[in-house]
Amino acid sequence: MTLFKRLIPRVEALRLIEEHIKPIGRTETLPIEEAYGRVLAKNIISPMDVPPFDRAAMDGYAVRAEDTYGASTHSPRRLKIIGVQGVGELHEAEIGSGECIQVSTGSPLPRGCDAVVMREYAEAHGEYIEIYSPVYPGANISKRGEDIRRGETVVEAGVQLTPARIGAIAAIGIERVEVYEKPRVAIIATGSEVKPPGSRLKPGEIYDINSYTLSAIVSSHGGIPIRIGIIPDDVEALEKAIGEAVEGCDLIVLSGGSSVGTADLLKGVVEKLGHVIFHGLQIKPGKPTLFALIEGKPLLGMPGYPTSCLSNAYLFLIPALRRMAHLPPYRPRTMKARLSRRVVASTGREQVLTVRLIDGEAHPVFKESGAITSMSEADGYTLIPIGVDVLEEGEEVEVYLFEDI
Amino acid sequence: MTLFKRLIPRVEALRLIEEHIKPIGRTETLPIEEAYGRVLAKNIISPMDVPPFDRAAMDGYAVRAEDTYGASTHSPRRLKIIGVQGVGELHEAEIGSGECIQVSTGSPLPRGCDAVVMREYAEAHGEYIEIYSPVYPGANISKRGEDIRRGETVVEAGVQLTPARIGAIAAIGIERVEVYEKPRVAIIATGSEVKPPGSRLKPGEIYDINSYTLSAIVSSHGGIPIRIGIIPDDVEALEKAIGEAVEGCDLIVLSGGSSVGTADLLKGVVEKLGHVIFHGLQIKPGKPTLFALIEGKPLLGMPGYPTSCLSNAYLFLIPALRRMAHLPPYRPRTMKARLSRRVVASTGREQVLTVRLIDGEAHPVFKESGAITSMSEADGYTLIPIGVDVLEEGEEVEVYLFEDI
Repeated sequence: MTLFKRLIPRVEALRLIEEHIKPIGRTETLPIEEAYGRVLAKNIISPMDVPPFDRAAMDGYAVRAEDTYGASTHSPRRLKIIGVQGVGELHEAEIGSGECIQVSTGSPLPRGCDAVVMREYAEAHGEYIEIYSPVYPGANISKRGEDIRRGETVVEAGVQLTPARIGAIAAIGIERVEVYEKPRVAIIATGSEVKPPGSRLKPGEIYDINSYTLSAIVSSHGGIPIRIGIIPDDVEALEKAIGEAVEGCDLIVLSGGSSVGTADLLKGVVEKLGHVIFHGLQIKPGKPTLFALIEGKPLLGMPGYPTSCLSNAYLFLIPALRRMAHLPPYRPRTMKARLSRRVVASTGREQVLTVRLIDGEAHPVFKESGAITSMSEADGYTLIPIGVDVLEEGEEVEVYLFEDI
Repeated sequence: MTLFKRLIPRVEALRLIEEHIKPIGRTETLPIEEAYGRVLAKNIISPMDVPPFDRAAMDGYAVRAEDTYGASTHSPRRLKIIGVQGVGELHEAEIGSGECIQVSTGSPLPRGCDAVVMREYAEAHGEYIEIYSPVYPGANISKRGEDIRRGETVVEAGVQLTPARIGAIAAIGIERVEVYEKPRVAIIATGSEVKPPGSRLKPGEIYDINSYTLSAIVSSHGGIPIRIGIIPDDVEALEKAIGEAVEGCDLIVLSGGSSVGTADLLKGVVEKLGHVIFHGLQIKPGKPTLFALIEGKPLLGMPGYPTSCLSNAYLFLIPALRRMAHLPPYRPRTMKARLSRRVVASTGREQVLTVRLIDGEAHPVFKESGAITSMSEADGYTLIPIGVDVLEEGEEVEVYLFEDI
């Protein structure tokens, strides 16, 4: 019989997990087009200035600013157009006094000029322009290095690569980046009665659910799910599977053990192979949860019941995995909603109440720990603290949303 | 010279995009372990009951409820244990009056019984148990089909597959699902001066940024980015690239044309090949944006400047793509923050102001449209409506966050 010496509150369990989970040290080098969402392992230092040259910030005419001083509609300044500066190459001419070169946004600034007159403030007459408004030196010019200076840190290590950060790395010509490897997460389902979807069930058998829900959770929070398979209730088979997982993975997630027999079996194997940090959570559903270290590798033993397994994955596996993957902490989107009906809570344990949101109202959908539809029909969950016996109809609760991607 | 006949407000542009973008009709069939995040194309109907059999919801003893009536601590009822029911197979015995079978959570209910007495309310003495508390018929039993009934719709078409929904599909033994194909998005960078990162720049040349930022945006919102490459400012080359994109893709995203020359070139090619829906947005940065249909395929022409290109991708490409991919509308996470300093807005156009959040204060980081760091150093952006000239220091603004994943 499984004895829980002391049920651990959720917050303490999270603290213990955090204490024993180490962020991955291994890195890999990827082309920037494959690095989106990954976490940078080294500072990116710019080898160049951006823009790499002084350039026109507007379409118009590159001039010597002093040639435009005093210009007005009544008294325009007249300059000779000595050429057209394209983008992508530098015009050979140098602007002298009384001269200008036509430029486009982004084109390098020709030699000899120090400002750009916007097209709107000039009028071309043959090979001359008339300028109606003066410009100061530097007007409508992006200076070399104005955006990024050579030697500057463009993106810092430890930061997740967003589209804009990848853009900044491309801007300085870097095509490959060193990022942290994704944690490899072994997923082991247990239970002699559990069979893979697609197979034919014999009486008393059920389909494996947890391997699939856990894999999805793992891939969406920065890990690589490695499905070890379904292991029957057999000590040797379990030891072998865990051994394999420890060998090739960074984190092991076991599901199973809703029945006392299986739970005892698992706990026995884990105790033999490693060191149990906690077993038994003060939470409902999700009590029979185990956290252990095996040869230094963290192992999360989840309840076998699919709803308990999945709600525990949201509460404990995601934080563990994100920490391991160097990702920022998980902040599920939340919203306030009023309960559609009275809820009698379980005493003595914090409760995860799954709800469906209809017109801003939270409708409890929890059936029982065994029911996967308690989760699949829910939009999110609310947590009922220990010591709260009843939530009244219309009471406002904080709903943590199961986010779409 | 590019003439914008009328600048289109953001909301109208979004309406026009929505009107002309059709969700993808093509579907593909995937194993459920690869279907996470995808959108279901057909209702999933259950071929079976879940649970597939009546089962014990608790560890304890399967009994005939009537045998327990009147049981109490002072007057326990005594039943004979005629066997142990494992999980995964049905015990051959049938319970008669005065008999019971030991069961575990999840094990099928033996024949002849109609309730389970929890372990905690019984005590075993050799081959007998004493029961201290009566149970009603159906107590501690999960009935066959209680979670999902055969013929029931388990997940509806059009819904995105979350971990829980994948779990529900696994629960009914289905291993493959039909989902909508991901839209194929052609990404074309333009500009003779634009070179790929990793290459050596000649004077006046710059690195391609937009292909990379756009690819990242596309992959994170349900599309497959197909990078057609960097096309020089040449009518024939552009026509060929767009032709290729129209052939093999569902949506074409072109970037380039910050300079008038390139912009005119692009617009000319697009007008020749198809039909322009709008050109010119009442937004800053991002004015030179074009939306067209080419052989019925939508084309978004983005500004060449990386910040303008990327902010437009957030504002227009993401909604277009998500609609095409059958994904729920984009709802960026938002927060309220006070401006760290006074901002003088541009008149006549809605303004995208990128900000960095420091201690809950929004610090404008916008440099100029050409600066990629305006985006890469920002945490999000706020929109300044047309007609607002000045935002004062300390004024509260709504910040749309660039989300980490």
